Amino acid sequence: MALIVKKFGGTSVGSTEKIINVAKRIIEEKKPGDQIVMVVSAMGDTTDKLIELAKGINKNPYQYTREMDMLLTTGEQVSISLLTMAFKTLGQKAISLTGSMVGMKTDSVHTKGKILDIKPSRVKEELEKGKIVVVAGFQGADSKGDPVTLGRGGSDTSAVALAGALKADACEIYTDVDGIYSADPRLIPDARKMKEITYDEMLEMARLGAGVMQPRSVEMGKYFNIPIHVRSTFTNKPGTMIREAYTMEEKDFLIRGVAHDDNVAKIAILGVPNNPGIAHNIFSALADKAIGVDMIVQSIRNIEKNVTDMVFTIASDDLSQAKPIIDEVADKLNAIAVLIEEDVAKVSIVGAGMLGNPGIAARMFGALAKANVNMDAISTSEISISCLIKGDQLKVAANAIHKEFFPEN
Amino acid sequence: MALIVKKFGGTSVGSTEKIINVAKRIIEEKKPGDQIVMVVSAMGDTTDKLIELAKGINKNPYQYTREMDMLLTTGEQVSISLLTMAFKTLGQKAISLTGSMVGMKTDSVHTKGKILDIKPSRVKEELEKGKIVVVAGFQGADSKGDPVTLGRGGSDTSAVALAGALKADACEIYTDVDGIYSADPRLIPDARKMKEITYDEMLEMARLGAGVMQPRSVEMGKYFNIPIHVRSTFTNKPGTMIREAYTMEEKDFLIRGVAHDDNVAKIAILGVPNNPGIAHNIFSALADKAIGVDMIVQSIRNIEKNVTDMVFTIASDDLSQAKPIIDEVADKLNAIAVLIEEDVAKVSIVGAGMLGNPGIAARMFGALAKANVNMDAISTSEISISCLIKGDQLKVAANAIHKEFFPEN
Repeated sequence: MALIVKKFGGTSVGSTEKIINVAKRIIEEKKPGDQIVMVVSAMGDTTDKLIELAKGINKNPYQYTREMDMLLTTGEQVSISLLTMAFKTLGQKAISLTGSMVGMKTDSVHTKGKILDIKPSRVKEELEKGKIVVVAGFQGADSKGDPVTLGRGGSDTSAVALAGALKADACEIYTDVDGIYSADPRLIPDARKMKEITYDEMLEMARLGAGVMQPRSVEMGKYFNIPIHVRSTFTNKPGTMIREAYTMEEKDFLIRGVAHDDNVAKIAILGVPNNPGIAHNIFSALADKAIGVDMIVQSIRNIEKNVTDMVFTIASDDLSQAKPIIDEVADKLNAIAVLIEEDVAKVSIVGAGMLGNPGIAARMFGALAKANVNMDAISTSEISISCLIKGDQLKVAANAIHKEFFPEN
Repeated sequence: MALIVKKFGGTSVGSTEKIINVAKRIIEEKKPGDQIVMVVSAMGDTTDKLIELAKGINKNPYQYTREMDMLLTTGEQVSISLLTMAFKTLGQKAISLTGSMVGMKTDSVHTKGKILDIKPSRVKEELEKGKIVVVAGFQGADSKGDPVTLGRGGSDTSAVALAGALKADACEIYTDVDGIYSADPRLIPDARKMKEITYDEMLEMARLGAGVMQPRSVEMGKYFNIPIHVRSTFTNKPGTMIREAYTMEEKDFLIRGVAHDDNVAKIAILGVPNNPGIAHNIFSALADKAIGVDMIVQSIRNIEKNVTDMVFTIASDDLSQAKPIIDEVADKLNAIAVLIEEDVAKVSIVGAGMLGNPGIAARMFGALAKANVNMDAISTSEISISCLIKGDQLKVAANAIHKEFFPEN
């Protein structure tokens, strides 16, 4: 007997036929005494259709965030009622509950809400009655009772947070991939499905560009220490378990994965006086506009004149906003020049195993050297090493590194 | 300065274009300081589409009444968010609130809920901030917070009840007809639009077959003594005011209208012993199955044998369910025969004015006689007189009566 929260995304409930299939599967797999909470998203393209409708009123409907939340929360309300009917049609007791009804309390930042607290007494009550509880993901309500959506990755976050509040045994995220891979299979065909990965590694992978899980839900899992099982909607095979630490079997891997990111721009401010506070000058100006800076390298240009070069990366998406700010700071600092390079990419390795294993970085750099890939900058964290390289070398570099650490494939 | 509740039905908000037009009209007509509450239904065919979707899960989705309510309440939630965006786009402050959020407390009879109480503190709060408050009609929430729909005529009922709870100056029901007519214009081309009608007359008209307003909302208006203004979505002209009593001008009319009903079946149980309890025997058997009995005529067939005929009418819709019950009772009572006639209709006049005016009935019967219409049965209430006639004479009969009492047309 276990309490399990299962999250199904929009494509998994994209039609009434698919909804019936989800219900059948859940009933088949349910063991006697299991308590099941389903967290579901809006059906397939429902959200897009609702946004389209809102655009019929105003071209830019997202300026009315509260009303967008009022509108969009109907999407999940439709899918939970239909999935509950499907359970009942198959003879399984079930009940649907909106985000507000499961006690999902959020702040009032409409369309990008954060969960403040969950008081799932109603969920517990209905589970005790032997019902499968079908919950609307992606949504909660603020202190006034107004509907608030949780923004990107919101349904996963709902599911994990609810699992935490219910002290569930696990949270299963059903998705269109069958688990977390050691790298993006589109870039690295040899990528290997991981049986397990720690919260920290998963967060580091996500931060460094891996797209399967949003960091929010992983952080939530870490906070509540709820194992998150990422698995396929279409098969019964186990996927990848995200948890605090490995079981024995998986300990052998020194690294967990290779992440990559090509939404990177490199900025070099050349020849600035190497005075205290110079880095602060540059980066606080960017921080004021919420532009994140990633890899930072400071190198000495002329030791006698005490002049230095500052090199750092930002997301390409932020470049147009960052450019005038950087030019202004460079001007103020009497810099010689500002160089911007957009054709760059970042390739990273992630793994808690590297903590006690010196030489991992050397192996990574060696793999890159053998593949004739030059590195522009390097940055490291406790559980990751990232290299900045030319954008057109990304595929070669990522595959070479992956081969080095996952040779068996 | 006035507080007015305005209700717009599904066709009035059937497209984003229509929604924008409604918003424009309301802003144009709003006087400075007016407080406006909008009660709206789901857009056009939204409810039908949602029911269709549910039928994709189960052919008979209405067996799951709670889940149907969860599903169908999304319809109004979409229209209130869109109408609110339309107001904001036009520069008018506005906010949308669901049935649950306006404190519309209902019982738990899903799909046919009754309003138990309204605590509209949130509505008042938002009105005080100068906002137009856009409320989802047709819905409330029970004591558990579960969504409950109010069934047929529910949006009108929401609007009138909310007007009552807010002590509004009036409740305006916008519809596709421009008011209440003295008769159905499809049957009686001479029908005259009434400026005013009392709650009791309107209720009697509805009971006797007039379709514009559901009795529930009129009863609610009477309970709260809120004037209900039934008017057109498409024009600015005043419609019909339903209120407690007339203003002077309208006092002249002896009757308010001619109602008709062809959903009538006549049943005659012939030759039953005229003992105490016989009527009880027949009608309690029907009442047990929630079949309403309307006109009842008992006539003596044979005074020496103390044998009588019982004649009454029921709705044609109920006939198939009523038939076996009636046959069983007739059998038990040793009746001679049961005769059923389906080609009958009821034509009625309604008006509080007839109370102090004897001779109204005589004028009605005279008009029928002149038109060669035979009466099968007559029934009266304090403010109405009804005649049962042959179905194919309905049009002639109704027009003759209307002409008698509204000769000026």
